Amino acid sequence: MKAAVLYAARDMRVESVPWPNAGDLGPRECLVRIHSVGVCGSDVHYYEHGRIGKFVVEQPLILGHECSGTVEAVGSDVSRVRVGERVAIEPGIPCRRCAHCRSGRYNLCPEVVFMATPPVHGSLCELVVHPDDFLYPLPEGVSFEEGAMVEPLAVGVHAARRAEIEPGDSVVILGCGAIGLLALQAASAAGATRIIAFDQVENRLALAAALGAEAIGSRAADPVAAVAEATGGRGADVVIETAGAVATTQAAVRMARVGGRVCLVGLPPESVFPLDVMSILNRELDVTSVFRYANCFGRCLDLVASGKVSLAPLVTGRYPLESVVDAFEFASTRKAECVKIVIQVAG
Amino acid sequence: MKAAVLYAARDMRVESVPWPNAGDLGPRECLVRIHSVGVCGSDVHYYEHGRIGKFVVEQPLILGHECSGTVEAVGSDVSRVRVGERVAIEPGIPCRRCAHCRSGRYNLCPEVVFMATPPVHGSLCELVVHPDDFLYPLPEGVSFEEGAMVEPLAVGVHAARRAEIEPGDSVVILGCGAIGLLALQAASAAGATRIIAFDQVENRLALAAALGAEAIGSRAADPVAAVAEATGGRGADVVIETAGAVATTQAAVRMARVGGRVCLVGLPPESVFPLDVMSILNRELDVTSVFRYANCFGRCLDLVASGKVSLAPLVTGRYPLESVVDAFEFASTRKAECVKIVIQVAG
Amino acid sequence: MKAAVLYAARDMRVESVPWPNAGDLGPRECLVRIHSVGVCGSDVHYYEHGRIGKFVVEQPLILGHECSGTVEAVGSDVSRVRVGERVAIEPGIPCRRCAHCRSGRYNLCPEVVFMATPPVHGSLCELVVHPDDFLYPLPEGVSFEEGAMVEPLAVGVHAARRAEIEPGDSVVILGCGAIGLLALQAASAAGATRIIAFDQVENRLALAAALGAEAIGSRAADPVAAVAEATGGRGADVVIETAGAVATTQAAVRMARVGGRVCLVGLPPESVFPLDVMSILNRELDVTSVFRYANCFGRCLDLVASGKVSLAPLVTGRYPLESVVDAFEFASTRKAECVKIVIQVAG
Amino acid sequence: MKAAVLYAARDMRVESVPWPNAGDLGPRECLVRIHSVGVCGSDVHYYEHGRIGKFVVEQPLILGHECSGTVEAVGSDVSRVRVGERVAIEPGIPCRRCAHCRSGRYNLCPEVVFMATPPVHGSLCELVVHPDDFLYPLPEGVSFEEGAMVEPLAVGVHAARRAEIEPGDSVVILGCGAIGLLALQAASAAGATRIIAFDQVENRLALAAALGAEAIGSRAADPVAAVAEATGGRGADVVIETAGAVATTQAAVRMARVGGRVCLVGLPPESVFPLDVMSILNRELDVTSVFRYANCFGRCLDLVASGKVSLAPLVTGRYPLESVVDAFEFASTRKAECVKIVIQVAG
Repeated sequence: MKAAVLYAARDMRVESVPWPNAGDLGPRECLVRIHSVGVCGSDVHYYEHGRIGKFVVEQPLILGHECSGTVEAVGSDVSRVRVGERVAIEPGIPCRRCAHCRSGRYNLCPEVVFMATPPVHGSLCELVVHPDDFLYPLPEGVSFEEGAMVEPLAVGVHAARRAEIEPGDSVVILGCGAIGLLALQAASAAGATRIIAFDQVENRLALAAALGAEAIGSRAADPVAAVAEATGGRGADVVIETAGAVATTQAAVRMARVGGRVCLVGLPPESVFPLDVMSILNRELDVTSVFRYANCFGRCLDLVASGKVSLAPLVTGRYPLESVVDAFEFASTRKAECVKIVIQVAG
Repeated sequence: MKAAVLYAARDMRVESVPWPNAGDLGPRECLVRIHSVGVCGSDVHYYEHGRIGKFVVEQPLILGHECSGTVEAVGSDVSRVRVGERVAIEPGIPCRRCAHCRSGRYNLCPEVVFMATPPVHGSLCELVVHPDDFLYPLPEGVSFEEGAMVEPLAVGVHAARRAEIEPGDSVVILGCGAIGLLALQAASAAGATRIIAFDQVENRLALAAALGAEAIGSRAADPVAAVAEATGGRGADVVIETAGAVATTQAAVRMARVGGRVCLVGLPPESVFPLDVMSILNRELDVTSVFRYANCFGRCLDLVASGKVSLAPLVTGRYPLESVVDAFEFASTRKAECVKIVIQVAG
Repeated sequence: MKAAVLYAARDMRVESVPWPNAGDLGPRECLVRIHSVGVCGSDVHYYEHGRIGKFVVEQPLILGHECSGTVEAVGSDVSRVRVGERVAIEPGIPCRRCAHCRSGRYNLCPEVVFMATPPVHGSLCELVVHPDDFLYPLPEGVSFEEGAMVEPLAVGVHAARRAEIEPGDSVVILGCGAIGLLALQAASAAGATRIIAFDQVENRLALAAALGAEAIGSRAADPVAAVAEATGGRGADVVIETAGAVATTQAAVRMARVGGRVCLVGLPPESVFPLDVMSILNRELDVTSVFRYANCFGRCLDLVASGKVSLAPLVTGRYPLESVVDAFEFASTRKAECVKIVIQVAG
Repeated sequence: MKAAVLYAARDMRVESVPWPNAGDLGPRECLVRIHSVGVCGSDVHYYEHGRIGKFVVEQPLILGHECSGTVEAVGSDVSRVRVGERVAIEPGIPCRRCAHCRSGRYNLCPEVVFMATPPVHGSLCELVVHPDDFLYPLPEGVSFEEGAMVEPLAVGVHAARRAEIEPGDSVVILGCGAIGLLALQAASAAGATRIIAFDQVENRLALAAALGAEAIGSRAADPVAAVAEATGGRGADVVIETAGAVATTQAAVRMARVGGRVCLVGLPPESVFPLDVMSILNRELDVTSVFRYANCFGRCLDLVASGKVSLAPLVTGRYPLESVVDAFEFASTRKAECVKIVIQVAG
């Protein structure tokens, strides 16, 4: 089958790799024919650098983990999906046995096998093998493209749940990339009645505004001052940081109201940097954080099917698998123009 | 000033009563000129029976507690509102000192002074005196009529918060009177992606459907069976009982999924009746309950101002204060046709 | 190997059954040599009636599910325990894949395989096969007998967690059988500073008192009135019902303070019976419930090892496996004298 | 009456000041004859520097806010306490009207009037006037000295509640001053089965050990490494930082297990300093914080009365009011030897 294989930084090739063999399926495994794959910032980072932190592409690696497709074959004990069914794929398979898995936080499983994290292959290829309990049938009216975008939406929904957003909350979203715009929509779905969104890039701000936020350019205005002004000095009930910059993470803890909540999502480029800890203490803030997601895919599909979340407006480019290198080059060199690029593996 | 005074069951008179004296305002009190007053089921019950349980109308009583108006005068230390400001009125004033008040559940204060609960007068009159911390400025674009309906909406929002509704939950609403339709909207605002609503009355079902619910007539279908069928046997994540009937309360604990939540809101006509306790235990349900509301008015106004909740469609009748007896007679004798009647005291 | 096999009501035989074969262990399975087995009320119920509700002993069944032992052999992928290690056994194995399992409530898994629930054999025998992730090494100083009693303790700890007991809470325990006395200790470990315990049987009350409770005989005093008197009319912060009687379940919702919590644990003999629903609504109670337990075994062992929970005082009888019929006859005919009988299979 | 009045840094004088007049009591106010006053680190800081941050001693100030005494006179509407009753005093009076007060977090009230915070006088004097709802009768067997120490205990209990400690949790306590040792006991009362405590000072470590902790000298061992070693590399379920040092705050977020909780209590000397934010994100930590306390005094008194918390061992010095300057000098110059100094105002 055809696959997009990364050999090294900026060396990705569309080439033939062996087909998975339906005859080798474990009893709970399914063979899924991939339809759509979203390009994630982490994919682009591997493409650019051949690594993310301690995860190094040492052998050729198939990228991609935001994906949907059609069930093509099922193992002997599969009951959750059936052949021919359209599905979204949750790309991380935890051990199901550790204390984290058993207590409902399987995203923290130390043995998780996660697509496109070396040495585990991803889904930028024609077929993948996946256990049935991490496949989610697409409701009627939800497209493959939307199915692929459930993965980043799950991050946003997980953030809204971790931040315990309630109807009537005011929420600041820092960063209007795909994760920011999806956290924005998750916050709105959870009842936020006022959302103030920051980014440096004009077209992202336009998207945020179209999705109902007060969108403020963070080059022009100091976000902390802008939030203070917009809230009469009070601050926001909830701040969700998705930009993953040092400055926005620093700003996050200064924007929340007394007694408010801050949810960190974006991974900053440095581990250790100055933070206004007194601001946390003096205002008795709760600072929570998000590492991937757990128990969110089903909720996400319901949100998309119900129309409470709109995924299509985020798609800024669509490419066939053959043009995947063009897609990654575009994503890498014209970041400001991209929100979500989708690779159409199947027709 | 004119007031609607209840002397006894079905003996309500619009008559002149003494004006409150602006000169007598306490330092934190305000004089509010009433504009709109919603008629609550409890008002109608007092009108019909002269009592609700242990609360008996022994002296002439002004009814009405869902209300909005304009601040006409303020005490010496009032800072939260200013003269001329349009406000919604939260009608229950707690002691602010007991353990319930101090822990955030002031609705449970045993010393609460609540409008239109004998012997405390309500707001079906031209002017009331109220402390400033229970007045909420109406945001631009929110009408007096909507301001008056914030009170029942607060019950719905309190229910959604007590039931801990999360984005993607499925919710059953039992009863589509005003409280049911407002709980429905609060549930939707909190992220419910599927809402199944039951009532016996056609026009209420039509309203529920217009507000996004799957509306099912509870005369035609057994609600427990209907929920089972609609959910593939699984049951609902959350069930909110607002009908206040014995049968619907009994049904509520049989409709929730394994591990689900039930929120009781409606007061049934009997205190003690058979309940399927095994259903609670076998499915490890959480059964919570709602007594009025706390910390909801501000959120409600934000929800209305943001358009996440629509109050106007619930208004089935508008009467001037002079016609208040007609309004109560209509509400009493043609219950099925009413959702919310609003008395226009001013303007 | 020897096993206690129930053929029908009051027909239990100690006889030879085939050994499990260590060679047949799955990769994550262990062979455990049973040491101690507690006799649960459900075991006695099967012994007396040959069934519990829909679960009928249709083929000979080995009873027992409160157990501990020594790991005798391990499958190829076992890493959590090692041969020779002393372990407590969590007797219910969930599917690990359904929504309940994945969200941390694996006790609600519809496919759980639970020891001594027909047709699944229990542990009143010399050897059992069990997956490693449901085995818990006994800390130093924790005996096999205590290890066996972790199972009922887990119910008590789960109840204390579900009831969200906080330091300084007052707690009522209804029923001082093994579950009641363990919930009592769990409540104390969670910070309850006042515990009022009810039972009809003198020696159980003596045990409750020895464990720090105010123990009140429920034959002599009306428990609802007694709690009202003891709390100056206020009621208890938390009520935990473990007696499983209709009367105590009815009393539970009348004993909680305004805004309090009720946790139902005991299974009453009838499914549907009159309950004071108005009491729940008027006081805005939270009524929660317990079905077995999840994520509690490790915590229980730490509580026992730390001395915060004392299990030995609850043991009212010890029998070798050969005398298991005597043990069950005693438990069945002299219930009032029993709290916990332990069968010593080994050693 | 006599009072300890701070004029400037290191200029405290015991002198006569006017008596409060019982005739001037507001309807809900009480006159309390002070018995015991604990010396807090903040008192010592004012003594040493004449200020804490923006709070400057510009006029002579009576210090002291950890206090107990006897009700000497009551206003016309006082019902919670009676003349002659022994009480603990909660020293911060919030406005009772703002959103924080009404939602149960009155410690965050921006208008709180807090003893010994300039320009509000404290309790190092013979008589104070205080509202009845912030007075708590001492249970039988609880001494005045213990009553005075309820205030710092409340910080510890608030921390244990904010950190959501559950039975079986492992907890690290950073800093074994009074707050650390009280947080330690609160954590134990909430069910912590393993507590690892760090400090630099030997006698504090000895106290921590006597209270059940594994006490580790933080000069000898790197606390992060020590926790890793003690937990087999796993980290602690909960970390409570009370030392208020930059280094310990930095260490706190590196000691928690994956999915763990960190609770910041101590105020570090700098507002902004480097923090390992990646550690929070990669392990999806919850970082919460504590500013004083709310709704804890009653619980604290129950914990002391029940024996779950021991206050007496923390008292390292007792002085009569006349010797208050000696007490402060000792506290200031021999910090390592002090845990809690109590001033005995009355006999």
